[in-house]
Amino acid sequence: LKVYAIREGDVVFSRVPMIRVEGPVAMCQLIETTLLNCVNFASLIATNAARMREAVIGKKPIQMLEFGLRRAQGPDGAMSASQYAYLGGFDSTSNVLAGINYDIAISGTHAHSFVTTFSSLDQLQFVNPKIQCKDGKDLKTRAVEYRKLLNEEESSNEGELTAFIAYANAFPTHFLALIDTYNTLDSGLINFMSVALALHEAKCEPIGVRLDSGDLSYLSQKCREYFRRVSQQFQVPFENLTIVASNDINEEILYSLNVCLLIDWLVDAFGIGTNLVTCQKQPALGCVYKLVAIDGLARIKISEEIGKMTLPGTKSAYRLYIHNNEPLIDLLVLDDEANESPTEKKKSRSLLEAKQVIRCYHPSNDLKRVDVVPDRIEPLLIKVQNDNMQKKKNSLRKEKLEKEDERVWDGKLVYKSPSLKERRAFCMERVKTLRSDYKRVVNPTPYKVSISKKLKDVMKDLIEKETPVRTIQ
Amino acid sequence: LKVYAIREGDVVFSRVPMIRVEGPVAMCQLIETTLLNCVNFASLIATNAARMREAVIGKKPIQMLEFGLRRAQGPDGAMSASQYAYLGGFDSTSNVLAGINYDIAISGTHAHSFVTTFSSLDQLQFVNPKIQCKDGKDLKTRAVEYRKLLNEEESSNEGELTAFIAYANAFPTHFLALIDTYNTLDSGLINFMSVALALHEAKCEPIGVRLDSGDLSYLSQKCREYFRRVSQQFQVPFENLTIVASNDINEEILYSLNVCLLIDWLVDAFGIGTNLVTCQKQPALGCVYKLVAIDGLARIKISEEIGKMTLPGTKSAYRLYIHNNEPLIDLLVLDDEANESPTEKKKSRSLLEAKQVIRCYHPSNDLKRVDVVPDRIEPLLIKVQNDNMQKKKNSLRKEKLEKEDERVWDGKLVYKSPSLKERRAFCMERVKTLRSDYKRVVNPTPYKVSISKKLKDVMKDLIEKETPVRTIQ
Repeated sequence: LKVYAIREGDVVFSRVPMIRVEGPVAMCQLIETTLLNCVNFASLIATNAARMREAVIGKKPIQMLEFGLRRAQGPDGAMSASQYAYLGGFDSTSNVLAGINYDIAISGTHAHSFVTTFSSLDQLQFVNPKIQCKDGKDLKTRAVEYRKLLNEEESSNEGELTAFIAYANAFPTHFLALIDTYNTLDSGLINFMSVALALHEAKCEPIGVRLDSGDLSYLSQKCREYFRRVSQQFQVPFENLTIVASNDINEEILYSLNVCLLIDWLVDAFGIGTNLVTCQKQPALGCVYKLVAIDGLARIKISEEIGKMTLPGTKSAYRLYIHNNEPLIDLLVLDDEANESPTEKKKSRSLLEAKQVIRCYHPSNDLKRVDVVPDRIEPLLIKVQNDNMQKKKNSLRKEKLEKEDERVWDGKLVYKSPSLKERRAFCMERVKTLRSDYKRVVNPTPYKVSISKKLKDVMKDLIEKETPVRTIQ
Repeated sequence: LKVYAIREGDVVFSRVPMIRVEGPVAMCQLIETTLLNCVNFASLIATNAARMREAVIGKKPIQMLEFGLRRAQGPDGAMSASQYAYLGGFDSTSNVLAGINYDIAISGTHAHSFVTTFSSLDQLQFVNPKIQCKDGKDLKTRAVEYRKLLNEEESSNEGELTAFIAYANAFPTHFLALIDTYNTLDSGLINFMSVALALHEAKCEPIGVRLDSGDLSYLSQKCREYFRRVSQQFQVPFENLTIVASNDINEEILYSLNVCLLIDWLVDAFGIGTNLVTCQKQPALGCVYKLVAIDGLARIKISEEIGKMTLPGTKSAYRLYIHNNEPLIDLLVLDDEANESPTEKKKSRSLLEAKQVIRCYHPSNDLKRVDVVPDRIEPLLIKVQNDNMQKKKNSLRKEKLEKEDERVWDGKLVYKSPSLKERRAFCMERVKTLRSDYKRVVNPTPYKVSISKKLKDVMKDLIEKETPVRTIQ
């Protein structure tokens, strides 16, 4: 099979073919479901991740943490989700296996169960001898003293304080506390700060807090204010402690938080699980795999719905740029139009040449057409596999076919996929080059995908020829 | 680890524990994400399937076909989806591997690409010699003759007719045609019928048609009318040919079709993919895994949201039946209340005995409580794994621990899972026993889940003890 595909991480618009497969029709049909299964979910998650990444663009870089493992479609679904969330622009995953296999940073916090495990300070057994606070006191002693300073009645939950001390004893330089087990502001935040101040004395800098319920906008503001107040009161550099927010976050919530927090984010990182790996807005991507040509003849599927009609013929796809690097329109042309072999150079030139006028037609609306003089033309489909037709004797059927040769179709990979990190960088770059009005959440400008005159004519002829005209009388 | 679980296929309501794990806290925490990953998606799909099955209940049994492979989260997600859609009440899958592995009936139709492969009757090469139509004519000849009879202008698509003949030649007794490639009523239906009539002459009975686009309600009526008309005209038993409908079907569409078609369904089967395996209404199920007790002490997680608060303590769950077999209410009790060991028989009797008054409390609303005299009480959590504490010498650390024994926790499965078919039957039975107002789609009666007095008291005490009371001044 000969296979062309869009580069992984590229931005693709509706009607542009993502994969083009050429070969014997039976073989092409056999791989239909496999290809769709692999492409649909991966593209959905990468797109979803990229949209969420767009939603947090601001002055300050925001860390996006993927927490989807427990809500994905089984372990394998979760692995794909982690990989493609990263590709779409997320920074890390809580899926340890995915982190190791794909070289993605691993991040997470302790569980609520860890906090509820403890109920009293007496349960603390392990004391980390390396953590030496002021006057040689240990972490527990100092944390309890700080808690008294911060919260005279010592009303913050004692089990929670115990859990934080235990956690900080074990991971003194990775102290990120989940503070909503009992009450975020009246317990978790105070307990966190008690331990954080004690850690700071021992020259271990705390990381921050994670909010996992309640009004994230309000709570993040209150936390930030508290950090600033404590910084002044105790002369510690705690203004910029990390605030991680999680709890059913989706794209809308990111945008609404962005508006609430006005100029700058008070949150430093978002942990997103459910709504990243099972995209709420559109739980499934509807890519399809259709026959567009056979034996050199273009074919079409019309169906009862215009959106389900296919664009016929073996097509190539190009992106036309203006102003040097601004994608303006994608153009689909029949393969023979775009053939760039030396002998057809002249023909190819006439159709697809930068700095020349190229007429682009709307796929279905005859009134819409535009002349574009692109600065640059970029092919979107890259050859990834060659058909490797070999003449090979079939030993099993030797007697029968002794004098015959059998063609063996075993494709050969001709494209070296970049690393996941490179694909991620490519994806983020491609998203960035898009004009912002295409990326607006509400009522975005539709990016145009057009077809060539010849493709339009082929399509018209096929519709004319293949569809019955009904007589109504 | 000791593990209790709801039987697979049972109906579970919010707040009833689905799995209860007992063991060393570190081990219990390690399996958190794995358990959630396995339970969440499987339960979601089974529930979704069962709801769709409910939506087509009527006079006629409707076949429900799962077509989700291409939209699932990778191959593994698709395998789970096929298995749990079947468990929830679907009849077959288009996923061949799942069909083989789980012994589920496999069903599907040919692809649109198969139809578009053909453009002219001249392309037909294979003639099945076993198909002998009237006067010894072959299938192609007779199909073309019938088409002329049915459609004088022969305006139905020729390639499509060719494809149907080719398909029927290959599978004469499994002729189910996808008829929307060009135009359902003006081409596909006529071509199907031409081949169907020819097949009938050769004593091969056609199966029917599949609609995959357009207004399924209108088209299914038109198809059924056509079947009836042709049956009369040609004296063939075609009134009840199968109509399969697919195309982005979800629960709402099933209900709306049910209303449109009034008394009886004109459709015999639904093929559902996308919206079955990626549940639109709720793309992810939010089961969580929380610590409820440690060292015999009940624990609670309160959080900022009442819905995220856990019910403390090691609990058992019971279903209380009235009128013999009508589930009325589920009751959660602390394990020591329900302990049914012989020595505690008397105590157990006093709390959970059929024909006796049992007081049930609402988990959070103190005003709501009810006395139930159940006909029957059924435990919901079944022991599936025993902790198998063995005393075993650790050979690797022999020198160090020569005189010590190490406890090895290797659980032992004590529950034999029924076959998938049995679990499916169990699931459908359990759904059936529920009163219909619980299953109503719009504004259903909430099924009640209650707790015992003792559990309520433990909960109150814990909230009192663990949450700080804030002073506002």
